[in-house]
Amino acid sequence: MVLSSVTRCCPTLQCVPVISRNLAVPRPNVLLFKSARRRETTQLNIRSLGSLSSTPVLLASSSLSSPSSSSKLVSKATGSLRGGKLVCLLRVSPRRPSPTPSRRGIHTQVGVMAKSKFEYVKQFETDDPCLQNCWIVVRIDGKAFHKFTDVHHYMKPNDERGLGLMTRAAQTVMADFSEVVLAYGQSDEFSFVFHKNCKLYNRRASKIMTNVVSLFASSFTLYWPRYFNTQELQYPPAFDARVVLYPSDDNLRDYLSWRQADCHINNLYNTCFWKLVQEKGLTPAQSQERLKGTLSSDKNELLYSQFNINYNNLPELYRKGTVLIRPRDAEAQSERETNNYRGYSASKKSERKPGSVVLHSDIIGKKFWEEHPYILNPKLYGS
Amino acid sequence: MVLSSVTRCCPTLQCVPVISRNLAVPRPNVLLFKSARRRETTQLNIRSLGSLSSTPVLLASSSLSSPSSSSKLVSKATGSLRGGKLVCLLRVSPRRPSPTPSRRGIHTQVGVMAKSKFEYVKQFETDDPCLQNCWIVVRIDGKAFHKFTDVHHYMKPNDERGLGLMTRAAQTVMADFSEVVLAYGQSDEFSFVFHKNCKLYNRRASKIMTNVVSLFASSFTLYWPRYFNTQELQYPPAFDARVVLYPSDDNLRDYLSWRQADCHINNLYNTCFWKLVQEKGLTPAQSQERLKGTLSSDKNELLYSQFNINYNNLPELYRKGTVLIRPRDAEAQSERETNNYRGYSASKKSERKPGSVVLHSDIIGKKFWEEHPYILNPKLYGS
Amino acid sequence: MVLSSVTRCCPTLQCVPVISRNLAVPRPNVLLFKSARRRETTQLNIRSLGSLSSTPVLLASSSLSSPSSSSKLVSKATGSLRGGKLVCLLRVSPRRPSPTPSRRGIHTQVGVMAKSKFEYVKQFETDDPCLQNCWIVVRIDGKAFHKFTDVHHYMKPNDERGLGLMTRAAQTVMADFSEVVLAYGQSDEFSFVFHKNCKLYNRRASKIMTNVVSLFASSFTLYWPRYFNTQELQYPPAFDARVVLYPSDDNLRDYLSWRQADCHINNLYNTCFWKLVQEKGLTPAQSQERLKGTLSSDKNELLYSQFNINYNNLPELYRKGTVLIRPRDAEAQSERETNNYRGYSASKKSERKPGSVVLHSDIIGKKFWEEHPYILNPKLYGS
Amino acid sequence: MVLSSVTRCCPTLQCVPVISRNLAVPRPNVLLFKSARRRETTQLNIRSLGSLSSTPVLLASSSLSSPSSSSKLVSKATGSLRGGKLVCLLRVSPRRPSPTPSRRGIHTQVGVMAKSKFEYVKQFETDDPCLQNCWIVVRIDGKAFHKFTDVHHYMKPNDERGLGLMTRAAQTVMADFSEVVLAYGQSDEFSFVFHKNCKLYNRRASKIMTNVVSLFASSFTLYWPRYFNTQELQYPPAFDARVVLYPSDDNLRDYLSWRQADCHINNLYNTCFWKLVQEKGLTPAQSQERLKGTLSSDKNELLYSQFNINYNNLPELYRKGTVLIRPRDAEAQSERETNNYRGYSASKKSERKPGSVVLHSDIIGKKFWEEHPYILNPKLYGS
Repeated sequence: MVLSSVTRCCPTLQCVPVISRNLAVPRPNVLLFKSARRRETTQLNIRSLGSLSSTPVLLASSSLSSPSSSSKLVSKATGSLRGGKLVCLLRVSPRRPSPTPSRRGIHTQVGVMAKSKFEYVKQFETDDPCLQNCWIVVRIDGKAFHKFTDVHHYMKPNDERGLGLMTRAAQTVMADFSEVVLAYGQSDEFSFVFHKNCKLYNRRASKIMTNVVSLFASSFTLYWPRYFNTQELQYPPAFDARVVLYPSDDNLRDYLSWRQADCHINNLYNTCFWKLVQEKGLTPAQSQERLKGTLSSDKNELLYSQFNINYNNLPELYRKGTVLIRPRDAEAQSERETNNYRGYSASKKSERKPGSVVLHSDIIGKKFWEEHPYILNPKLYGS
Repeated sequence: MVLSSVTRCCPTLQCVPVISRNLAVPRPNVLLFKSARRRETTQLNIRSLGSLSSTPVLLASSSLSSPSSSSKLVSKATGSLRGGKLVCLLRVSPRRPSPTPSRRGIHTQVGVMAKSKFEYVKQFETDDPCLQNCWIVVRIDGKAFHKFTDVHHYMKPNDERGLGLMTRAAQTVMADFSEVVLAYGQSDEFSFVFHKNCKLYNRRASKIMTNVVSLFASSFTLYWPRYFNTQELQYPPAFDARVVLYPSDDNLRDYLSWRQADCHINNLYNTCFWKLVQEKGLTPAQSQERLKGTLSSDKNELLYSQFNINYNNLPELYRKGTVLIRPRDAEAQSERETNNYRGYSASKKSERKPGSVVLHSDIIGKKFWEEHPYILNPKLYGS
Repeated sequence: MVLSSVTRCCPTLQCVPVISRNLAVPRPNVLLFKSARRRETTQLNIRSLGSLSSTPVLLASSSLSSPSSSSKLVSKATGSLRGGKLVCLLRVSPRRPSPTPSRRGIHTQVGVMAKSKFEYVKQFETDDPCLQNCWIVVRIDGKAFHKFTDVHHYMKPNDERGLGLMTRAAQTVMADFSEVVLAYGQSDEFSFVFHKNCKLYNRRASKIMTNVVSLFASSFTLYWPRYFNTQELQYPPAFDARVVLYPSDDNLRDYLSWRQADCHINNLYNTCFWKLVQEKGLTPAQSQERLKGTLSSDKNELLYSQFNINYNNLPELYRKGTVLIRPRDAEAQSERETNNYRGYSASKKSERKPGSVVLHSDIIGKKFWEEHPYILNPKLYGS
Repeated sequence: MVLSSVTRCCPTLQCVPVISRNLAVPRPNVLLFKSARRRETTQLNIRSLGSLSSTPVLLASSSLSSPSSSSKLVSKATGSLRGGKLVCLLRVSPRRPSPTPSRRGIHTQVGVMAKSKFEYVKQFETDDPCLQNCWIVVRIDGKAFHKFTDVHHYMKPNDERGLGLMTRAAQTVMADFSEVVLAYGQSDEFSFVFHKNCKLYNRRASKIMTNVVSLFASSFTLYWPRYFNTQELQYPPAFDARVVLYPSDDNLRDYLSWRQADCHINNLYNTCFWKLVQEKGLTPAQSQERLKGTLSSDKNELLYSQFNINYNNLPELYRKGTVLIRPRDAEAQSERETNNYRGYSASKKSERKPGSVVLHSDIIGKKFWEEHPYILNPKLYGS
């Protein structure tokens, strides 16, 4: 069909602001075209009038993901400015039908009209892109897990089931988001490291963190029975999440060291605290008082002398937390040798072994990073 | 114990930047104090040196929620600037023991030292507070629900079970977040409206949206069996979420109208589309072709003439979506009369009936808002 | 000329990320086209591939304001996805020459190539749009004006010349930015209120505040001699600026009240302080000590008893600061009557009398706003 | 004086939200204390209640830069939570008088009260800190300099006076902001590079860019006569500014290369354009048409054959733009040798030679950076 010019179809002043505004605006604006053949109206959303060619019109069919976007594909269009009004002519051809109707499908123009008057509210939405070339860390943290662990009778100070479930949920996230190069978890928190060149959701922080945290939460819930068997989940757990950016590899490694040091400090303290409560019958208050101001050495001594425990023999899971990396990145150094670098770096993410490998290594020292030199290697993710 | 002066304990130049920086800085900075009595070192985090009193020191024991914060309560301190260096004297007294040890408990100074060198990474975290006095809308949206609904054999165009489950999850969110005054859902999305004066998480957008979306996702997963019985959930679902701010009541109402108009447009189209596929045996492509460019009136006519369906008699759940409000706000107008306004507005949130009421009303027109004048009334949330 | 397909011109992998990225991305991405006819290469910047029509190409000639944008106007183009690669054909026609060459003019393709490899750095720039439908306040504040006023021998507590110059600079800003509906100044600060619907620079906060503050600073410098005559400006003054958003009229009025209350408090104190120093010969320290903890009433009493001054008789300029509004908004109420509202609200910004009117009124009370009902009236700025 | 407990002085419910809010809040909140001795009221602003010590009170006298902050120095305080209310006891001692009264000086409590009811508007202000460990680039750009250069009869394509004045203004900025390690300018723009560890204004983007751009604008205006002599400045010029962050040294160098390539491309084009206009008598349109689609080689050939100009012999100022670095960083390599690194890196910013050195070097190639290895060396700025 051939549409008549804008000037005829909307002789209102609307066009003037639309045009002047658009010269700068990144947000979509609306033009209404009335068909010359029928009374049908098409709403077109414009991103740019840069060159007064058919740009706006063509953009119209692509810039808007909402139902009000035209159901037509504008295959040809020309335009020009006359007296501050956009005059353009379009040829519209049918879009190749897609196998199933998208929920955001094709709609009657009347519906379009009904909605278009509210659509301005979309302009209140803002993007929150992460700065380019920075490591993106998403840290999730259990909401009120103190209560949650009490209600669900977690063993203190560490509950294998609970830690296993956290890891399972984190692995689900890694399986879904190939941009994650490493994840680190301890207690009720998990950090996911997205590589510097990651383009996921165009690096929109809100989109990344909400997808990650919601998938983590639903996985935690779905896989609960596999870890807690007959003990039922009493209520749906919540987690918060935040995005933190780290410009350099050192910053990122210090972040991970910070979390692992936190794990150590908490675990040493909690191990002592609960031993005193569980085996010496102290009240929590007494136990806390007993430990106040003690040094690490004091606590180690306490565990050894009072409970015959060598702290360093406790499971690494408790002392170091959990590190998840990609199978490929976890390959033995020996294999590496046979594996000249260029060929290696050429390999695509797609070639990576799926899933993740669970470690409880020290990631504060250099050793881990020297043994796994590919985890932070940007060349592997395309620059 | 009595700590010696900073100048003696850290004779480095570190103090100078610390001080000059702090005069403005909102981020914590670190001062190290060495005990005169023992070799113990305490790390103190400073937020302000505004008056060169003991502020920084006192703040030290409060400003940092991490284990590295001092385990002591500094009860008295004085300070002054001498030659660009902070000199201060502190008296430290034991903190009253709390009943149970917080996960972020008391730690040995050695642990503090081990961690303190990484702790600077916290400075890379940023707040994202929502502008004051604006309606906060959190809209969650199913990730790839096209595939999800296919895998789980949802009825088309509407699945009672799926919609019921979405509503159930949304009610869980409303039960947990009393700041939500209204929620609106359709298809695989739900919008939660937090009142303008809401102080939740100090209005931090990330914290609000991630808690909401993770609770929604875990509820959706936990309550799945109640709606889909023996049909198992095949994989954990994910949802994204965004925060949008609306300064005026009109903006907020237009936002809700936009979503409800979207519901109408999609449902009318999808009803026609699936009738053609399910009862006329058209392929999706043929069905889409048949509907291309049709008006609402065309579609209504199609449903009536071909399928003897009066669209307006279809369930409101499908045509209007789902509105959740507070029981109190849903009370009959009659009761209102007996209920003089002042007394009403004086009532606290705490007095509100818990939970939420499910409606499928039109919220585009004025009627709904006239009948429920208290939903948007800021007086009810304290200014 | 006819360009060959992308697949042939850049067989690298670059296309794949470009395409996948673009499905969401608002930021421009680069495609390189090699001419079939000559060895010339054209760089095109793409905003959207929504419909695989010529959108990206057409956008190319409009989306980028930098010299590397194509010097051609692509008048016709078609495209399609083949195996994850964009294949398209373009017809390029000359752009109508503009009268004078823009600094961002037309450039050789070689230059384009030289630059294109650095151009990715543009992606690090971010927008900072102000939330829609909020009052935008830009407050500028003199940098180190304590020293500045000493060096330039300002009269204490108030210097007519200095205040006059501040007002002159503010009027220059109002003359340049018609979106400003009111400005309020006191001491070394000035606040500019941009109306809620203001579209200036697409509401980008950085762009707005830097243009305002730099114009203010250059005006202050340029007009200095008119106020300080032979006394020379010793060094260029600096000002900082911030943008603050206020969603409601009440918030905005409270903001202005806050600044005027600040003016009152400072002026009353400073008047007493300098009287004691200048007429009683107290040292600044003694004067400060004398006033410590005194109430307003104490200070009024002090001025009256010791210096026979009735504070309320001091010039309003000192006590109230300076209010700038538009001539039209300042018209006498009487004229208003003759002026039915519809006709009034229909008037365009362009009809406004240029420049600004200087007042020293109280803006805390209702009176001012009742007498000037049009200042905050959004209808006057088009919604 | 001894203040009575909060519970007695403000028995309202205000305390409860204050306390609960504060546990997280970074924004100040207000507590009112009424003196037990007199009817005087003191407003205190609280940042944290972390430990229920006197933190809030002490913070009160430091956290708020406005006149309403307490005029007292609280030297001792204790506090505790009782039934959700903060109960505390304070001892207030006089603040040591400062030599001169700050404009933000001491104020009567009545003034405080008058203002405190508006002060909530401060909560609408937000910080915009730059990500840590990133290069901060502030690029300023002349507003409508096309018109400005016409009005002021700038020589085309390059005006020595205009470029000299830009450089002079940029040097003023560098003299004031020691954190700037390099500045690059061309045409009507200048970029200032602040080192990665820069703490200026706590890295608040708005504060940094507005101070820089306003100082630049006032310098440009103040020094105008030194470059344009009797030709008067017709109106105050404006500049916009933006902040861009670059995480890596490579990103920063690519940014600078981008700007210098832009300089080259524009200058080559403009040189040809104006030669054709000025010496061949072409109209701007004809000149533009003549140059359309030409390559660099074409333009070089044009200049040589038609105007006997070897482009590479034109002044570097035109072809390369202007680079400003610190005198120390510009020292001859020879001196460097004698200068072992440790000693060098130990040198403080304060030891730097003031001012800046003007170069017109190529900064795209490696040579410049190899010859001046200290410009980007973070060790010189303290990490």
